[in-house]
Amino acid sequence: MTAPGLLSVVGIGPGGRAHRTHAADEALGAANVVIGYGPYLDQCADALAAGQRVVRGEMGDEAGRAARAVDEARAGARVALVSSGDAGVYGMATLALEAAAALPEGDRPRIEVVPGVTAALAAAALLGSPLGHDFACLTLSDVRTPWADVERRLHALAAADVALALYNPRSRGRPWQLGRARDILAGHRPGGTPVGVVTDAGRAGQRVTLTTLAELDPALAGMTSLVLVGASTSRMAGPWLVAAR
Amino acid sequence: MTAPGLLSVVGIGPGGRAHRTHAADEALGAANVVIGYGPYLDQCADALAAGQRVVRGEMGDEAGRAARAVDEARAGARVALVSSGDAGVYGMATLALEAAAALPEGDRPRIEVVPGVTAALAAAALLGSPLGHDFACLTLSDVRTPWADVERRLHALAAADVALALYNPRSRGRPWQLGRARDILAGHRPGGTPVGVVTDAGRAGQRVTLTTLAELDPALAGMTSLVLVGASTSRMAGPWLVAAR
Repeated sequence: MTAPGLLSVVGIGPGGRAHRTHAADEALGAANVVIGYGPYLDQCADALAAGQRVVRGEMGDEAGRAARAVDEARAGARVALVSSGDAGVYGMATLALEAAAALPEGDRPRIEVVPGVTAALAAAALLGSPLGHDFACLTLSDVRTPWADVERRLHALAAADVALALYNPRSRGRPWQLGRARDILAGHRPGGTPVGVVTDAGRAGQRVTLTTLAELDPALAGMTSLVLVGASTSRMAGPWLVAAR
Repeated sequence: MTAPGLLSVVGIGPGGRAHRTHAADEALGAANVVIGYGPYLDQCADALAAGQRVVRGEMGDEAGRAARAVDEARAGARVALVSSGDAGVYGMATLALEAAAALPEGDRPRIEVVPGVTAALAAAALLGSPLGHDFACLTLSDVRTPWADVERRLHALAAADVALALYNPRSRGRPWQLGRARDILAGHRPGGTPVGVVTDAGRAGQRVTLTTLAELDPALAGMTSLVLVGASTSRMAGPWLVAAR
């Protein structure tokens, strides 16, 4: 028998109301329990309802939040587990689904994944349409993936000549990976390849910088940045960066 | 001098209100002129306002719609150009930006791209989180790209071992490309690699099929399908397809 609760893993988009979906609003508003990393809860505070139990989590405890969300739903609650961007793209969905799958089949709560506008899409829209043709999303975080694997993928994706959206390009603990990725990509693509660095897309303090692969300064990027690298067919159309077909 | 109009290229998501954003609603509701392919206009009819001029376009005349939208905005209108999914992912943004860029700088209208939930994200959410780690989006349409280029990218992306979201997998005029793509991918990935075929995600008649690379029947897919192919780390977690890290 399936437990009666429901866990909605909710992608809230880049932050703020504008790029959030109706389905996300509805899942947040209908929940008894809302669980998320504190700053993300603040970003969707306008969609929360009175009387909800709100559980503010810490950075780094994603697995703990996923397990708690599954437990609450098993116990019969309607739970919203908040994820930035799209819940299924470097988001909370995998952790929640794995936590539920580890339970005996009859103990698993119902789970729905509510998609959202992932950072690559929000960032791209500010530059033009750099992801208008084939592209790949790649995280530069080597916290859970060996850096050798990241490098192997970078080489293969560079060879595929698709535009790239680089997630988690740089943080205090990972200061050199973006520079190394730039150097790898520069071995496959011309130095003049357009690169966009977008920080805090769709949030207060949003910054957009257009540069080139040869001139990319990793210091432009931080924890909340997304780096977009053009393919060989990417070009400037007036002030806009577009991916040609 | 910039013309006074505004062109919003609006991604309405997969169709229907649930996965549409507030920014999309607002751009649609505030427009004087709404331009789009007929069925997409029907999908966002609830966001349109009384008194708007609505221009229903035909399949295949995307460039004509983009040019018309730019012209209307140049003439001072507030224009919403409707795109399915995300306006910047195989959407109308590139065409609109290129049409505007072809004008003398002073004649270009203001343009904003309103991002949305692209088909890959909507489809993935129905399967679990198959795009939870690195992935690429690739169109199998060879209407404007030589098939040899598509094949080259398929090989390189398969080698990169990222999950794949295949757009435009099959239509009446392009019946064999998906089978050929399957055979190419099967040269790089095990036959048991999980594959999801999602048709009409988030719309009436939504269908989700889970299969494997070896058993993928191209006839499962049509004009409104999205095919998701796992990477080597993709696996079933209970009933859900997830991308492991």
